[in-house]
Amino acid sequence: MPLVCPSLEAFIPSAPLDLSSRINKLRIIISVLIRHQTMDTLKNNWFTETCELWPGGTFSIEVKEVLHSEKSEYQDIHVFDTKHFGKVLVLDGIIQCTEKDEFSYQEMISFLPLCCHKNPEKVLIVGGGDGGVAREVAKHPLVKEIVQVEIDAKVIEVSKKYLPFMAVGFDSPKLTLHVGDGFEFMKNHSQEFDVIITDSSDPVGPAVSLFQENYFALMKSALKPNGIVCSQAGTVWNDLELVSNTLKICKNQFPSATYAYASVPTYPSGQIGFVIGSLDKDIVFDQPQLIFSEEDEKAMNLRYYSSAIHKAAFVLPTFVKHRLA
Amino acid sequence: MPLVCPSLEAFIPSAPLDLSSRINKLRIIISVLIRHQTMDTLKNNWFTETCELWPGGTFSIEVKEVLHSEKSEYQDIHVFDTKHFGKVLVLDGIIQCTEKDEFSYQEMISFLPLCCHKNPEKVLIVGGGDGGVAREVAKHPLVKEIVQVEIDAKVIEVSKKYLPFMAVGFDSPKLTLHVGDGFEFMKNHSQEFDVIITDSSDPVGPAVSLFQENYFALMKSALKPNGIVCSQAGTVWNDLELVSNTLKICKNQFPSATYAYASVPTYPSGQIGFVIGSLDKDIVFDQPQLIFSEEDEKAMNLRYYSSAIHKAAFVLPTFVKHRLA
Repeated sequence: MPLVCPSLEAFIPSAPLDLSSRINKLRIIISVLIRHQTMDTLKNNWFTETCELWPGGTFSIEVKEVLHSEKSEYQDIHVFDTKHFGKVLVLDGIIQCTEKDEFSYQEMISFLPLCCHKNPEKVLIVGGGDGGVAREVAKHPLVKEIVQVEIDAKVIEVSKKYLPFMAVGFDSPKLTLHVGDGFEFMKNHSQEFDVIITDSSDPVGPAVSLFQENYFALMKSALKPNGIVCSQAGTVWNDLELVSNTLKICKNQFPSATYAYASVPTYPSGQIGFVIGSLDKDIVFDQPQLIFSEEDEKAMNLRYYSSAIHKAAFVLPTFVKHRLA
Repeated sequence: MPLVCPSLEAFIPSAPLDLSSRINKLRIIISVLIRHQTMDTLKNNWFTETCELWPGGTFSIEVKEVLHSEKSEYQDIHVFDTKHFGKVLVLDGIIQCTEKDEFSYQEMISFLPLCCHKNPEKVLIVGGGDGGVAREVAKHPLVKEIVQVEIDAKVIEVSKKYLPFMAVGFDSPKLTLHVGDGFEFMKNHSQEFDVIITDSSDPVGPAVSLFQENYFALMKSALKPNGIVCSQAGTVWNDLELVSNTLKICKNQFPSATYAYASVPTYPSGQIGFVIGSLDKDIVFDQPQLIFSEEDEKAMNLRYYSSAIHKAAFVLPTFVKHRLA
């Protein structure tokens, strides 16, 4: 899959730079590469996802119609209507969610941390510009107030227009939505939240900083006592090194931390996981604090998460258990 | 993805046929279509999997070298050496196993039924021509005798040559290997096995009959009292109808039956499941009869299965639980 990028050399660092500048340069290079790939990869109505994070294997999806296509200040944004997966949101060439299976991801990244907490009254969502996590968090009976900080207003706008099944989350009366940088927001909000959920894209492009130690330290400072954080943390099949690193960072900051996972077929390897950290050193992550009955599940329209799935999500395959020990 | 198949018309039934003949004709048509697709789908060193069972989305894998390519009496057989998934076996255009992740499938289809049984001394494997299931079954400490019936001698031959990490299973002194039809074999072996594992390809081509009721009835007749069957049964994300039908068939024949699943990233949707039936009406599938310690796991080189994963594999996402109820 050839890349066409005549201006690439312009971005390559030519003089010694400090670490932060080098990382920023590399982010720009990767972003340019991905943009050109996205243009190249919609051929014969098949969109092909490619990313250096999962080399040698890729998923393609049959597109009926390109509903939207733009470059925002932060990333490439595409919305496709597809033949068998409904509406699909693609950022920087990577599938973020499909109408067919988004419920699995949104429910799990929301209810796993919420149900690990005894009383998750005030919740911060960082990212989540499609509205799906807000939709799920708002369902939890103990949640009173949700604050969301999404960096890219264009993602919110596009989701409201084309992905109403997720953007409905923005309509919750519990929610206050800010457009801005989660980093900056948390610097000004100390000891305020019971649960912080980071619904980010993968660590290329604008989300790189959300996988670093100073981000986890900031989240810690924004939490109330016994607070819990939950971050999208990649898949064990493609990125076990990334999962391991993210968990290590979380463990550096929090007295208790672990990894759980869910099945999401349109994510690379069909699986995605979450690093969860808690300020409560005695927490037992795999025992939900609030047990849902089948009637509760039905009332909240939960299609993936249940109290039984909560427990099972923390049971790791042997090779993962050993690597993350 | 255009199909080139000039001789296809020759296969289309032109006169009324009985059901069995029509199914056979359709099998041949599908097989021809898939063969032509396989030829078409290895382009620029990327092999693309396509199958009508999972429309609108497809997985591609980067190939370093085509190690083997032939049409056996039953199916197209390809072996690829790939850039990031090691050696890969492809039958009729569908990835059967990759060196990177095959352990997850082989361990789960073997140890789930074996550990549901109190004393799985004698085991029948139907299919499994790559040797991977034999490799795993032979590890179980209570298994004394394994009989395997694979219909396609060419798959065995190719696996011995190119996939020794799986074909090592054929070297077990516990194993007797037959080349032939599992159907015919079981007709002549009544009440003989404690566990029957059907490691089949998907229900297109030679494996269609292994998803039908008379196959489950035959397995039942070949089992000893309290015997257990386990069949590859597709994924809940693409084929919930197929899973549901296969489970229904199993429930018609067995007093207890259920579905469990595993994560296998190179299978469609990154997940595959198993229908498990037992002649013991009081069986509790999610409680393994033999609990493995970490030392046991290590001694058996188990990289996915553990007694904890055994329990978790039966916990179904809510939308699946309701559909299979």
